[in-house]
Amino acid sequence: MTTPSRRELANAVRFLSIDAVQQANSGHPGAPMGMADIAQVLWTDYLKHNPANPDWFNRDRFVLSNGHGSMLLYSLLHLTGYDLPIEELKNFRQLGSRTPGHPENFVTHGIETTTGPLGQGLANAVGLALAEKVLANRFNVEGHAIVDHRTWVFLGDGCLMEGISHEAASLAGTWGLNKLVAFWDDNHISIDGDVQGWFTDDTPARFEAYGWQVIRGVDGHDADAIKAAIEAALQVSDKPVLICCRTTIGFGSPGKAGKESAHGAPLGPDEIVKTREALNWTYGPFEIPESIYAGWRNPQAQAQAEADWNAALQAYAAAQPQQAEELQRRIRGELPASFAADSAAYIAKLQAEGPVVASRKASQMAIEAFAPLLPELIGGSADLAHSNLTLWKGSRSVNGTDRDANYVYYGVREFAMTAISNGLRLHGGFIPYDATFLVFSDYARNAVRMSALMGTKAIHVYTHDSIGLGEDGPTHQPIEHLAALRYIPNNDVWRPCDAVESAVAWQQAIVREEGPSCLVFSRQNLPHQARSDAQVRDIARGGYVLKDSVGTPELILIATGSEVGLAMQAAEQLGDGVRVVSMPSTDVFDRQSAEYRESVLPRAVRKRVAIEAATAEFWRQYVGLDGAVIGMHGYGASAPADQLFERFGFTTDKVVEAARQLG
Amino acid sequence: MTTPSRRELANAVRFLSIDAVQQANSGHPGAPMGMADIAQVLWTDYLKHNPANPDWFNRDRFVLSNGHGSMLLYSLLHLTGYDLPIEELKNFRQLGSRTPGHPENFVTHGIETTTGPLGQGLANAVGLALAEKVLANRFNVEGHAIVDHRTWVFLGDGCLMEGISHEAASLAGTWGLNKLVAFWDDNHISIDGDVQGWFTDDTPARFEAYGWQVIRGVDGHDADAIKAAIEAALQVSDKPVLICCRTTIGFGSPGKAGKESAHGAPLGPDEIVKTREALNWTYGPFEIPESIYAGWRNPQAQAQAEADWNAALQAYAAAQPQQAEELQRRIRGELPASFAADSAAYIAKLQAEGPVVASRKASQMAIEAFAPLLPELIGGSADLAHSNLTLWKGSRSVNGTDRDANYVYYGVREFAMTAISNGLRLHGGFIPYDATFLVFSDYARNAVRMSALMGTKAIHVYTHDSIGLGEDGPTHQPIEHLAALRYIPNNDVWRPCDAVESAVAWQQAIVREEGPSCLVFSRQNLPHQARSDAQVRDIARGGYVLKDSVGTPELILIATGSEVGLAMQAAEQLGDGVRVVSMPSTDVFDRQSAEYRESVLPRAVRKRVAIEAATAEFWRQYVGLDGAVIGMHGYGASAPADQLFERFGFTTDKVVEAARQLG
Repeated sequence: MTTPSRRELANAVRFLSIDAVQQANSGHPGAPMGMADIAQVLWTDYLKHNPANPDWFNRDRFVLSNGHGSMLLYSLLHLTGYDLPIEELKNFRQLGSRTPGHPENFVTHGIETTTGPLGQGLANAVGLALAEKVLANRFNVEGHAIVDHRTWVFLGDGCLMEGISHEAASLAGTWGLNKLVAFWDDNHISIDGDVQGWFTDDTPARFEAYGWQVIRGVDGHDADAIKAAIEAALQVSDKPVLICCRTTIGFGSPGKAGKESAHGAPLGPDEIVKTREALNWTYGPFEIPESIYAGWRNPQAQAQAEADWNAALQAYAAAQPQQAEELQRRIRGELPASFAADSAAYIAKLQAEGPVVASRKASQMAIEAFAPLLPELIGGSADLAHSNLTLWKGSRSVNGTDRDANYVYYGVREFAMTAISNGLRLHGGFIPYDATFLVFSDYARNAVRMSALMGTKAIHVYTHDSIGLGEDGPTHQPIEHLAALRYIPNNDVWRPCDAVESAVAWQQAIVREEGPSCLVFSRQNLPHQARSDAQVRDIARGGYVLKDSVGTPELILIATGSEVGLAMQAAEQLGDGVRVVSMPSTDVFDRQSAEYRESVLPRAVRKRVAIEAATAEFWRQYVGLDGAVIGMHGYGASAPADQLFERFGFTTDKVVEAARQLG
Repeated sequence: MTTPSRRELANAVRFLSIDAVQQANSGHPGAPMGMADIAQVLWTDYLKHNPANPDWFNRDRFVLSNGHGSMLLYSLLHLTGYDLPIEELKNFRQLGSRTPGHPENFVTHGIETTTGPLGQGLANAVGLALAEKVLANRFNVEGHAIVDHRTWVFLGDGCLMEGISHEAASLAGTWGLNKLVAFWDDNHISIDGDVQGWFTDDTPARFEAYGWQVIRGVDGHDADAIKAAIEAALQVSDKPVLICCRTTIGFGSPGKAGKESAHGAPLGPDEIVKTREALNWTYGPFEIPESIYAGWRNPQAQAQAEADWNAALQAYAAAQPQQAEELQRRIRGELPASFAADSAAYIAKLQAEGPVVASRKASQMAIEAFAPLLPELIGGSADLAHSNLTLWKGSRSVNGTDRDANYVYYGVREFAMTAISNGLRLHGGFIPYDATFLVFSDYARNAVRMSALMGTKAIHVYTHDSIGLGEDGPTHQPIEHLAALRYIPNNDVWRPCDAVESAVAWQQAIVREEGPSCLVFSRQNLPHQARSDAQVRDIARGGYVLKDSVGTPELILIATGSEVGLAMQAAEQLGDGVRVVSMPSTDVFDRQSAEYRESVLPRAVRKRVAIEAATAEFWRQYVGLDGAVIGMHGYGASAPADQLFERFGFTTDKVVEAARQLG
């Protein structure tokens, strides 16, 4: 068995990609062909991982930010020995395969994050690298560098054009994330053609302006040059590193190399034949000779690396038993055993005490109560700490080497903040939260969606949740945002009506393993609501009867957040036949059993009024065609909040009137 | 009457801002106090405008991207003689005033764009400057520089941290927009405190990397230095200019200058007294002596400037009568007189011919048909021209000096693209369109909202509108986006079912004066639907009976886009009692008269099935609690489209089954 050259190893990636895209008649061969040589050097010579155990905690993280090049990643996983058999590559982009069009970490073991929406992979990677830094500062002690790995990113021109690349790179520079190394696939081509017409940035200078170390002018098809660049990157101790790799998209294709036609479509049978000739690749589709596999794989050394780390962990446990136990708990992602009881006790205490505060303040109180129980809680705000109320007594900035670092000053960067949250969670060891005004969830929206799609536990805190924010006016007053966030599949939105519901929302977001939660809080004070123990328990069901009618309800008022108090006042006037349902989370309520939902909203009771200072139409799904909605039908205005609630019809009188008009 | 110093003139801005914020007990004094000296030099010495006519077309455009500093702008408008009396400043942030919390161009005459959501003002300004450049190239001839003005922007650290600043600045650099001059309020403070902890970019180097001319280290409180910087900026002939102004937030306040406490809250009565002393401002709240007004105002010269331009326009009209007429039509924003008839004829022809194409292709056909009629149509795509199908035969890049330039290669920059569209429209002379995949409307979402809030005619084209895009998978398959866009107030969303509805959607978006439209198109082919002339007419009502029942309908099927064909097939099987409603725009349908809506969806008919490959719950507002929805309840998957429609239940059998289960 002859030893294949580096180029031959890289060509295996090229042809797996070419052939899978051709077989699927769909996909992107250009980027895998262009970055194969870089990947070959990185994955065989540097990447610390164990394909036999993709979950090894101290592995290097690899992110393909230009996720359309998914076949690059599938090829690498297959070639290096992950459990991704050749059949899966043959089924690229087919229903039920483990090789979907873009890399999906919830489908394919060995993929760190789901990419495709450009630029977000880079931001996820910044989160991964930040996680490593904070964990290392927290747990490593002299002689025990138990958390110690790198994060590698591939990114393309598209990632660099996106605004989120600015936000993420700026933060990585500020934080000095030296274990983050990005490879720019500088191929001069994006989908519309040569980027000269729309992408003329001096990217190296731009990244230097962020405080990155930039390694310029690397020939991305010269293994020696790539290796030298990586060696140089490894020497950098205080900055993230960008390696600028000049590459040819579709490298090896005589007719399409260097052209946008290589980007997003199969090369076509004729061109594939020519490419095989040009690269002297004599094997058939999906045929990989043993010598090539042998060149890519190194199972003994990789298993040994993990075994060495396990031994180091044992040594660490001997030296630092409590710390080691805590680290392992955090690696497993288990909450402290006492959290359930402690959080319930806090909620019971709040119910008894009945503080009247803004729910954003109640949120801060919940953080203050829960954060000491949860060292894994890490979070921050997009430059609104004192508005979002995200700081607590134990907050310590991650910008530095504080062992107790847990707070992130994100600056005004909502999108990167949210994608970095995702990265922190994907790394393991953390429960991240982030915060901005609800209206600016718009800026972060696709990262919220990615949390939900990936099923990543991330807690997105959104304050100033309605016209109740007052004078800042319609640019800052969310209207459609509640509905728009609720409609993101697998995203739980909570809009609590008082301090008790706020604490439950936090508790539920913390215990939820299936995905993110958006916690939506008021700027203004909200009254406390009386509840029985059973009612307190039922808050976690998303919707429950807060005040019941005498006998079968004649009318049901449904409200959330700041409008629950209004519903309670209206119910007073409307008499004994009225039930009030508090619905802090429609998403959670909708998941309850049919029996429970029927017990709260009996199908037969059609006299229903929903009240929420947000998109009115959203509530038709709960009140039907025969009910009424007191909601917003347009934008708010700049004025003191009480005048706005009056102006837009959020008054007891209007609720009573709407209810009586139902006949 | 003594002549006030520049500092005294600037102090008038400071104290109007201080006093208005104090009176409102809400607002942001710090930025107006910090930027007052810059504003004084710019607005008295350079800004070309006529306060007596804020609509003068050839005026310079001024954008306050850090819109929270709204009192700076209101003070400037008031002081320079716009119709904004002192009473309005006293009513800052009050209901019904013309001085809302953030600048709103639809409320206050003289404001170019609505700002507050950070970074977007800069992108709007890039659009304004691009508009000027393209119009000048189109209409100016030797000796007649009839379109010739600058765009000035103030921006803060927050704007520069936002990702959109990267996208917008990169494009401005690529396009060489030398008439765009930005002033960076470099005060080292953002809401969370000194920016050293989260904003360490070398901003001048970053902007040089974008191809801007950067003027470093200007003392933003030294009028001579500011003037010198502006003079230098005026000499730059091929690049946008960033003037870096070192300023002190809350300048003049002994206790709060240079601190974040000056940013977003009233100074407080005691501090205001001290600030008056420190700045030697002897006047009471809202008291401006005549000498100060005299120093700010220059009505004769400003009126003369406009009169000179009007004379120049007459001379131009004499030399270039047709061009002048066309320019004036575009300035008035009137469509060509023939557009109504020509577009109707095109639609009638399509109905007769019945092409079976993807609606994205139908969109391109509509552009091809309408663009030759509309020289004001300008647009592009975020690097997806051949997927969004936004190019037409007459497309000419704006990157250069082509007189017929009308196409923008935006690169992968959805957010800036959309905000630049808004700027192009706000300038006047254009109807802008932009395009990306529907799922990436997420990246641009707040700019879509700003189009809608401002009532700006901008056409947002979104293709690949459902799981029908197939193999790219759930990262690229929109689910919640249709509902989320429909819920943006004053945003018209269209999802046409065939080429005819696609052409009507384009036509309606073009004629709509009240705000933006989102045109949502399929990747895959859609069947043609037969229609009477009356049905063709009713498409513009947003929803109409496409196939009626014999007699009163027993069942109504409601569908949009690619699911209309499915509804028609199901109706065939379900028999004569079934009505099919095509609902290309719920937003437009909801605005129709109650009578019309009742004629389409009779209240008494409760057996209703809605079918759309998107968020199912959205449709409850049309089918009620007793109807059924065939929609999406989670994410899609990566597979060929036909398999996905089958897998997720979009089949005739499922529709028939759902209808029959309604009993």
